[in-house]
Amino acid sequence: MDLERKVAGLAARVAPVDGEAGAAALRRHDRLVKPPGSLGRVEATGVRLAALARACPPPVPCRPVVLIAAGDHGVLDQGVSPWPREVTAAMIAGFCSGTAAVNAIASTVGAEVFVVDVGVASDLPAHPRLRHARVRPGSADLSQGPAMTRAEAAAAVLAGATAAEDLIDGGADLIVTGDMGIGNSTPAACLIAAFTGRPAAEVTGRGTGIDDAMLNLKVGIVAQAIDLHRPDPGDPLGVLAAVGGLEHAALAGLILAGAARCIPVVLDGVNAAAAALVAAALRPEAVGYLLAGHRSVEPGAGAALDHLGLQPLLDLGMRLGEGTGGLLAVPIVVAAAAVLRDMATFDEAGIG
Amino acid sequence: MDLERKVAGLAARVAPVDGEAGAAALRRHDRLVKPPGSLGRVEATGVRLAALARACPPPVPCRPVVLIAAGDHGVLDQGVSPWPREVTAAMIAGFCSGTAAVNAIASTVGAEVFVVDVGVASDLPAHPRLRHARVRPGSADLSQGPAMTRAEAAAAVLAGATAAEDLIDGGADLIVTGDMGIGNSTPAACLIAAFTGRPAAEVTGRGTGIDDAMLNLKVGIVAQAIDLHRPDPGDPLGVLAAVGGLEHAALAGLILAGAARCIPVVLDGVNAAAAALVAAALRPEAVGYLLAGHRSVEPGAGAALDHLGLQPLLDLGMRLGEGTGGLLAVPIVVAAAAVLRDMATFDEAGIG
Repeated sequence: MDLERKVAGLAARVAPVDGEAGAAALRRHDRLVKPPGSLGRVEATGVRLAALARACPPPVPCRPVVLIAAGDHGVLDQGVSPWPREVTAAMIAGFCSGTAAVNAIASTVGAEVFVVDVGVASDLPAHPRLRHARVRPGSADLSQGPAMTRAEAAAAVLAGATAAEDLIDGGADLIVTGDMGIGNSTPAACLIAAFTGRPAAEVTGRGTGIDDAMLNLKVGIVAQAIDLHRPDPGDPLGVLAAVGGLEHAALAGLILAGAARCIPVVLDGVNAAAAALVAAALRPEAVGYLLAGHRSVEPGAGAALDHLGLQPLLDLGMRLGEGTGGLLAVPIVVAAAAVLRDMATFDEAGIG
Repeated sequence: MDLERKVAGLAARVAPVDGEAGAAALRRHDRLVKPPGSLGRVEATGVRLAALARACPPPVPCRPVVLIAAGDHGVLDQGVSPWPREVTAAMIAGFCSGTAAVNAIASTVGAEVFVVDVGVASDLPAHPRLRHARVRPGSADLSQGPAMTRAEAAAAVLAGATAAEDLIDGGADLIVTGDMGIGNSTPAACLIAAFTGRPAAEVTGRGTGIDDAMLNLKVGIVAQAIDLHRPDPGDPLGVLAAVGGLEHAALAGLILAGAARCIPVVLDGVNAAAAALVAAALRPEAVGYLLAGHRSVEPGAGAALDHLGLQPLLDLGMRLGEGTGGLLAVPIVVAAAAVLRDMATFDEAGIG
């Protein structure tokens, strides 16, 4: 109960964004030397940044990071992915050595890569990029019983929040959500079904690229889990405990921590979107700090973003995870702030 | 005739891209530590980069530039824009002092900003970012007669090519097309109508944001110009001379020069798309070096990209020009190359 109270305390620290600062950004956009509205979504993004930072112009993010929450999944035993569990740890080794997709893309956009292990089932060697905060070595099989206890779900939320807070204390001023966990698009689909009320078939996708037979099996597992647990969207920790993953819990904590510290959180794909539903259920005000980096190919991601009222910045047909799609949106977010800070007004330019 | 021969010589230096290098990139993508195809359009972009650079992995662009071709337009006298001609020069002053949208966005993506004046009607003070290569002080009114002579069109093509070549000689390894010229979306619409065969109403848009009355007038002007000149798409310099702008000619030259030197050229909006049609008519092989940065709100841009078989990377509702939308796509292009260079294969990672 103590851990649950701490999660409630974290959520309570998220304040509403400042609509007045957002309105000031809107007005400023109409005075800058360009036809009003001509920067489209870049302008709308600048308005969101001003509102969440409570300042116009908003600060220009200069130390973006991607924080990859990692865990394993008992439901993998049901055959929902062709990849073995050990790949989770092998991929984390790649994130640490700098040879994964997330590293190549992070270095392109000037972001640092960090990993927090909240639930990996294999041993992981120590590494400066890797934080050990394992709550349990993988979740239980959600198709047979709860994925974890409520206390474990709360502990993973808090572990994600603490990892994010430490990065913010170290200077990070924009966080991209990353995720790693073989099988994690199954609990993501369960979370999205639970919070949006949509049927399993609408929110379950091919993850890393499974075939029709495995997709049918996966849809059945998601439907069965929802039937078994009847998760109550009014009890987000209960939903996480029943059908979530440890990394989804950690990402919900990351989101709440970023929001509580008034910095933008850029969502990656379907796992981030599922975690955002948890965070929004814990504290609806948290949505104001979120930017949807891209539209993942996974159908559940779109369903979750629609539910949250978020429009993705990119649509590149990506479905890798790790934070890759969110990272590619970072320059657009940075540009949105830079435009508000750096452009002259018509008056200053002596035009109009 | 000498200038026209030089343009033909420039076009002839553009070689076909290397399909074998593109195929090697496709194969490499299937061996990198990620599910095949999971990076979507980023993978397809990497394939294009390998093909145009004739190397897999392709070089990772590290010195991107935006080159803004600038000119004025006689057709402005017909009332196709609410902005006076003098704004062209005032905006160029802003590009030089670093206070325009293009500067804020260029600095976000690590690109340098350069301007080439091929047809501005006002005096422009000297500045290190600005190249003086004025062919004539603004085009003539294309609704009444030819916008320029064939020799002037050829001279502007060559001026754009020379400006691009000097940047490449200075180390630029990716060029984004930029444009400035009050009224230039009218000649852009004429060029797109001429090369795609579509009616004026389908390819003429609101430019910087004109009202219905001005849009109707503008559609009428475009239709009238096509009627008057009956431009022959098989004679690209003739089309440019009849209904083009000096900056469109310069951008066509920029594209041919970038393609001849085997570096990627990222297109911005409707003016770039119109210029790309000119370049493709002069040398179809040039299309292989083009990446469409974004889908502009202008309907003509989409029509031109469809005609060229190019799919835009971003769709952010932008319609500013200057190179802004093309610049925002640069990190995606750089990431596409970095992924091919920096990621480990499954073998190297000991997975699978």
